[in-house]
Amino acid sequence: MSFLNDDFLLSTPLARELFHEVAKPLGIIDFHCHLSPFDIAEDRCFGNLHEIWLEGDHYKWRAMRANGIPEKYITGDATPWEKFQAWAATVPQTLRNPLYVWTHLELRRYFGITDLLDETTARKIWDEAGAQLAGGQLSARGILRKFKVEAVCTTDDPADPLVWHEKIANDPFGVKILPTYRPDRAHAIGVPAAFNAWVEKLGKTADLATDTFGGFLDALKRRQESFSLLGGRLSDHGLERCFAAECSDGQAEAIFAKVRGGAVPGDHEREQFGAYMMHFFGVMDAENGWTSQLHLGPIRNTNSGLMQSVGADAGCDSVGDFSQARSLAWYLDNLAAAGHLPKTILYNINPADNYVFATMAGNFQDGVTAGKVQYGSGWWFLDQEEGMRWQINALSNLGLLSRFVGMLTDSRSFLSYPRHEYFRRILCDMLASDVASGRLPERLDYLKPLVANVCHDNAARYFGFAL
Amino acid sequence: MSFLNDDFLLSTPLARELFHEVAKPLGIIDFHCHLSPFDIAEDRCFGNLHEIWLEGDHYKWRAMRANGIPEKYITGDATPWEKFQAWAATVPQTLRNPLYVWTHLELRRYFGITDLLDETTARKIWDEAGAQLAGGQLSARGILRKFKVEAVCTTDDPADPLVWHEKIANDPFGVKILPTYRPDRAHAIGVPAAFNAWVEKLGKTADLATDTFGGFLDALKRRQESFSLLGGRLSDHGLERCFAAECSDGQAEAIFAKVRGGAVPGDHEREQFGAYMMHFFGVMDAENGWTSQLHLGPIRNTNSGLMQSVGADAGCDSVGDFSQARSLAWYLDNLAAAGHLPKTILYNINPADNYVFATMAGNFQDGVTAGKVQYGSGWWFLDQEEGMRWQINALSNLGLLSRFVGMLTDSRSFLSYPRHEYFRRILCDMLASDVASGRLPERLDYLKPLVANVCHDNAARYFGFAL
Amino acid sequence: MSFLNDDFLLSTPLARELFHEVAKPLGIIDFHCHLSPFDIAEDRCFGNLHEIWLEGDHYKWRAMRANGIPEKYITGDATPWEKFQAWAATVPQTLRNPLYVWTHLELRRYFGITDLLDETTARKIWDEAGAQLAGGQLSARGILRKFKVEAVCTTDDPADPLVWHEKIANDPFGVKILPTYRPDRAHAIGVPAAFNAWVEKLGKTADLATDTFGGFLDALKRRQESFSLLGGRLSDHGLERCFAAECSDGQAEAIFAKVRGGAVPGDHEREQFGAYMMHFFGVMDAENGWTSQLHLGPIRNTNSGLMQSVGADAGCDSVGDFSQARSLAWYLDNLAAAGHLPKTILYNINPADNYVFATMAGNFQDGVTAGKVQYGSGWWFLDQEEGMRWQINALSNLGLLSRFVGMLTDSRSFLSYPRHEYFRRILCDMLASDVASGRLPERLDYLKPLVANVCHDNAARYFGFAL
Repeated sequence: MSFLNDDFLLSTPLARELFHEVAKPLGIIDFHCHLSPFDIAEDRCFGNLHEIWLEGDHYKWRAMRANGIPEKYITGDATPWEKFQAWAATVPQTLRNPLYVWTHLELRRYFGITDLLDETTARKIWDEAGAQLAGGQLSARGILRKFKVEAVCTTDDPADPLVWHEKIANDPFGVKILPTYRPDRAHAIGVPAAFNAWVEKLGKTADLATDTFGGFLDALKRRQESFSLLGGRLSDHGLERCFAAECSDGQAEAIFAKVRGGAVPGDHEREQFGAYMMHFFGVMDAENGWTSQLHLGPIRNTNSGLMQSVGADAGCDSVGDFSQARSLAWYLDNLAAAGHLPKTILYNINPADNYVFATMAGNFQDGVTAGKVQYGSGWWFLDQEEGMRWQINALSNLGLLSRFVGMLTDSRSFLSYPRHEYFRRILCDMLASDVASGRLPERLDYLKPLVANVCHDNAARYFGFAL
Repeated sequence: MSFLNDDFLLSTPLARELFHEVAKPLGIIDFHCHLSPFDIAEDRCFGNLHEIWLEGDHYKWRAMRANGIPEKYITGDATPWEKFQAWAATVPQTLRNPLYVWTHLELRRYFGITDLLDETTARKIWDEAGAQLAGGQLSARGILRKFKVEAVCTTDDPADPLVWHEKIANDPFGVKILPTYRPDRAHAIGVPAAFNAWVEKLGKTADLATDTFGGFLDALKRRQESFSLLGGRLSDHGLERCFAAECSDGQAEAIFAKVRGGAVPGDHEREQFGAYMMHFFGVMDAENGWTSQLHLGPIRNTNSGLMQSVGADAGCDSVGDFSQARSLAWYLDNLAAAGHLPKTILYNINPADNYVFATMAGNFQDGVTAGKVQYGSGWWFLDQEEGMRWQINALSNLGLLSRFVGMLTDSRSFLSYPRHEYFRRILCDMLASDVASGRLPERLDYLKPLVANVCHDNAARYFGFAL
Repeated sequence: MSFLNDDFLLSTPLARELFHEVAKPLGIIDFHCHLSPFDIAEDRCFGNLHEIWLEGDHYKWRAMRANGIPEKYITGDATPWEKFQAWAATVPQTLRNPLYVWTHLELRRYFGITDLLDETTARKIWDEAGAQLAGGQLSARGILRKFKVEAVCTTDDPADPLVWHEKIANDPFGVKILPTYRPDRAHAIGVPAAFNAWVEKLGKTADLATDTFGGFLDALKRRQESFSLLGGRLSDHGLERCFAAECSDGQAEAIFAKVRGGAVPGDHEREQFGAYMMHFFGVMDAENGWTSQLHLGPIRNTNSGLMQSVGADAGCDSVGDFSQARSLAWYLDNLAAAGHLPKTILYNINPADNYVFATMAGNFQDGVTAGKVQYGSGWWFLDQEEGMRWQINALSNLGLLSRFVGMLTDSRSFLSYPRHEYFRRILCDMLASDVASGRLPERLDYLKPLVANVCHDNAARYFGFAL
C-alpha cells in the first residue's frame, strides 16, 4: 500500500467502509487545544511554512536537537528559510516517528503536496506552500472552515481579559471559538512574587479586590462567569499528580495570607492549598455543568539551561512516574461525596498508568450522565498510533468505548487537524479487525453509530456547547 | 469470520487443531473463585437471568453506571425484569468490552441462544433462558457437571464454620468443592472493634479461646486443619502490597494485646503485625504442602458514597500503583531463608507490574518443585484478551509457560465457565502463530502436551487435590 | 515457515531484502558485554558445551530451577555432562522463552546443528559440538572473527590492572578488545570494610595514595587514563535509580573520611556521596569525549540463600519498580547545566519505564552531536523479541530511531552473537511492515541507510573507537 494513500491504516473492506462513509464526512469538535485566539480574531495569514509549522512546535524542536541541529536553527536567530532547511534535513531522520506521518499528511491535506520532504525537495515545497499561504485560503479561519471544524476550545488564563475571544464573538464566522479556564497559577504559590503578581492581575481583570482570600475566590468565580458568557464549558488543569491533603477554609485563608505577605510556604502548605483550590474548581465546574479536564503526570522543564534560554515549553518536558492512584481517588471521592463531582476527563501521560486511569474513571460514574467520567484520549507523547491504540484498548476493556468523547488536537498549530483523520482511521480499523476475527458481530447498525458517536456526536452532546 | 463461531480467535489450522483436539475436551480445575458454597450445597436453581447474571456482578454494574443507568436499576429496588432490561439496553454499548464477548458466549454455551442481546431481543432471551433455568438442568450442580468442572476452590473466611462445605462433602456429586483459606481479617487491625469481633468469632468457630495471642494463632492453625480435612489446599491473600517490617514474636503479641484492648495501632504497628501474620500464614502453608496465593495491587472502595450505600465490592475498585518489588522480595525471601516458602502464586492487578512479578517468581524457584512459584494468570481487570496475552507473553519471556497452572475464573457467577474456553483459544492461537512465523518448531509432540499441561494437567499435579 | 529458517521473523519481501542485503553482511560492534578478557587474551578453547554455554549463564540457571532441577545440576558438583543433560531436559520446557530460540540459533550458527535439543538428542549434540570445539576453530578469538566482530567492550573495575587487556593489545588479532570503566564500587560505601579494601586496591593499581579524598579522585582519574590508553571510550554504571542529593566537595570529603575511618554512613550520606561521585564520573566522561552508560532499575540478589550459596549474579535478580524520572532528570540536568553532560546511553529494566526514559533522553540533546543522549536497547529481561519491539517503538515514537547506536550483547557468553542477527531481523521486519501498510514510504534510499546506521554505522561513529 503506497504511503498515506486513501486507505492507509484501513486493513479491511469494513474498515474502509466505516471510515469513508461514516467517519470522514463528520465535522470536528476540537474541545482542547492551544491555538491562539489572537490569530483567529485577526484571521492571521501565515507568511511561510516556518511561521505556520516551526515557530512554536516543540515536538519538531526536539527532533531537530536529537538530529544534531544547533539551537540557532531551531529557536535562535537563523532566518525562517534556514530553519526550514534544517527541518527539511531532519525529516528523513524521523522515519517511524509520528512527525514523519504528520508532516506528510499535513502537506497533503493542506497543500496537496505529495512530495516527500527532505533537503532535495525543501525549496520546491517551501515555494509551493508559500504561494498557497499567500493566496489567503489558508488563513487561520480559512483552515478551520476547510477542516469542517465546528468548535475550538482554546486554553486561557483566568487573568486573561479574553479580548480576542470577545472580538471573535462580535465577528462570528461559523466556527465556535470558546475559551477554556486553566487556573494552574491559582495554586502556584511556591514563588510568592510570581503568585502575587498574578493575583493582582486577576483582580484587575475581574475588577475585584484580591487582597483577601474571599476576594480572590470571588474573582475566580467572576472570571468563570465571563468565560461562560463567551461559551466556555471546560476547565483544564495541568498537574504532576492530584494534590491530596485536608485543608479547612481557615487553613487555606491563612496560607493565602502568608504567601500574599511574601513568605514562602512549606511543602505541606502547598499541598493543602493546591487541594483546596482544586476542590473549589471542581465544585464550581459541577455547579455550572462544566467539564473538568485533568492532565496528570509530566515532569516539566527538566533542562534548566534550555528553560532559561528558550523558556517554558521549549521541548524539555518528559513523561513522569508519579504515584497517581491514591491521590486521584482522594480528589474525585471528595467531590463525589460532596455531591459536586463535575463531568471530568482524565488524561495520563505515562502509558504505564493507563489501567489506573481507565479503571478510576469507572469508579465515579454516577448513573445519570452516560460517560460522565471520561478516560481521555492519548495525550502529548501518547498522541501517536501506539498511544492511541493503547488508550482505545484500555478504554474498551475497562469502560465503554461507545461513550467516549473522542479525539482532540491539544495543538499549538493550525496544521494539526489531520490528527482527527488519523485517529478516525485507527478507530475504524480496530473495530473492523475485531469483526474480521469474530470478536465483534458484523452489525453495521451497531458499528456505524458507534463510529459517529466517538468521532463527533458524543462530544457534541457531552459538553453542552450551543452548536 | 462470524461472531463467536467455532473457530473464533483461532487464526491458523494448527491453532484449530490444538484447541479442538487437545484443549477443548479437557476438564476444568477452577482453583480460585468466589462461588457460593451455599448455592452448591443446596443445588440452587436460578429463577431468571437476573438472578444468575446480574445479582452480584460488579463488572456489569460498572458498565451500567458508565452507560448512565440509575442505581435503582443496578443495585436498587427495580424489579428483576426492569434490571435485566437496563442491562440489555447497555449491552450494545459494551462493544469491545470483554462483557460483550462474555455475555454472548454465555448465552451460547449455557442456553444455546445465538441472538445478540439488546433492547429488541431482551424479552425473547429473558423468556427463553428463564424457561431453561426452570427446567432444572442449569442448577448450580448441573452447570458444574455440564462444563466438566473437576474441582472448585471457593474463597472462605477462617472464622466461617464451613457448614455448607460439610454438607457438600456428605452429599458428593462428582465435583470436588474445596474451601480456600482467606485470612485477610486476621491482620485488619486498623479498626479494633471490627477486628475484635472477628477474633471472637474465630475463637468460637475453632472452639478455642482467642484472648491471648497464642490462642489466636492456635485458632488460625486449627481452622486450617479443618479446611484441610474438607480438601482445602490453598490460602488466598488480598493486599495492596506485601507488608515489610521486622516484627518479633513479642512485638506481635504486644500489638495484638493493644488492639484487643481497643486501642488503635499506629501505621508502623499495622505494617509489623501484617508482616508477622503473613509470615505465619506462609510458614503454615509450607508445612502443610499448601499453595499461597497473593493478590496484590488494587485500591478498593474508592467511592465512599457507593461504598456506604451498596457496600464493598460495589464496583468502585481500581487498579492501584503501589511499589511492589522491594516488599514482595522481602516477604518471599524471609520465607525462603527460613526454609518455609510454600508453593506460591503471584497475581498483580496493574499490568505495569507484569515484569516485576514475573521476574520475582523466577527468583525463588527451589529446584525441587517444577514451577513452584507461579506467575498467575490475568486477574480482575486483566482477565480479558489483552490482559491474558500480556500475562502469557510475560510468563513466556521471563519464565516457563510450560509449567503454568493456568486459568481460573475468580468469579462470583456460575456463568463464568466459558472463560476457560476463551483462555484456551488464546493460548492455542499464540502457540500456533509462533509456529507459523518460524518462532517455534512445528513439533506436535512438544505442543500438545504443553497445551494439555497448561489447560489442565499442571494444576492437577501442582495443588495436590485428590482428584 | 519452518523453525528458524533463513527468513524467520521476516514477514514481507522488503523485510527479506533489507535483512539479507543490508543488515546481515555488516560487522558487529559489541559496545557492551561481560566477556572475559582473560579468555580472549589466552584465546581460550572450550572443552564442551557445558563450559561455553552453562558455566556462567544465569538465564539458563533460572530456567532450570523453574523446571525443578536441583541446584546440584546447575551450579553444584554434578559433572559437566550431567549438567548438560539437565539443561537438555529443560530445553523443551522453555518453548516461547527466548532461551528456546537462542539455544537453537546458537547451535545452528556456531555448530551447524539443526537438531532440536532435548533429552533424546542431548548425547548426539554434546558429541558433535564437542568435536567441533576440540577442532579449535571455535576458540574465543575464532568466534569473534567468525561473527565479524569489529570491537568488543568488556566491563572492568577501575581497580583492575587490566593485564589481560594489555596482553591482547600486545598481540592483536583484528578485533578491538576495549575495557569499559565500571566504577560502581567507588560509591558503595554502605559496608566500610569492603569499600576500604577496594580503595586500597585502587590505589595500588593506580600507584597513588588513596587515603585522602583528593588522592582517591586522582586515582580514579589516572585509571580512566589507563583505560583510555587501551582504547576504552565508555563508562558503565549499574544503579537502582540515580542518586539525587546536593553534596559539596567538603561534604563528600567528610563522608569519605568517615567511611575510611570505618564508620557506617547514614542513608542520606550514601545518597550524597553517590550523587557526588556520579557527577564526578559524568564530568570526567564529558571532558574525555567518553560515553556514559546508565543501567537503571534492577533489584538484585533478592534470594539471600542463593546469594550466600552461589554468590552474586546467581539468577535471583528482578525487575524493580523504583521512581526514576525525578532523580534521572536531576542527574542529567546538573551535568548539562555545568556544561559537562557526556554522551549518555540510558537503559531501563522495567518496561513500564520505557516512555520515561525515551522522553528523558530527548530533553538533553544538545544540538551538536546527533543522538547524543541515547535511549538504549532492550536490556537484560527486555533483551528478547517483545522487549526489542517495545524499545524500538518507544524510541521511534519519542525520538529518532535513525540515530540509534543499536544492539549489544551484554553477555557473559561467547555464544551470544546471533543476538545481533535476531535484532536486525526484527528491525528490518518492523520497517518493512510499516511500508506494507502505508505508514512509511517505500524509499529504499531512506530505508537502507537507516538499517545500516542502526545496525553498525551509528555505533562506529558515535563512540569514537579507532576502528
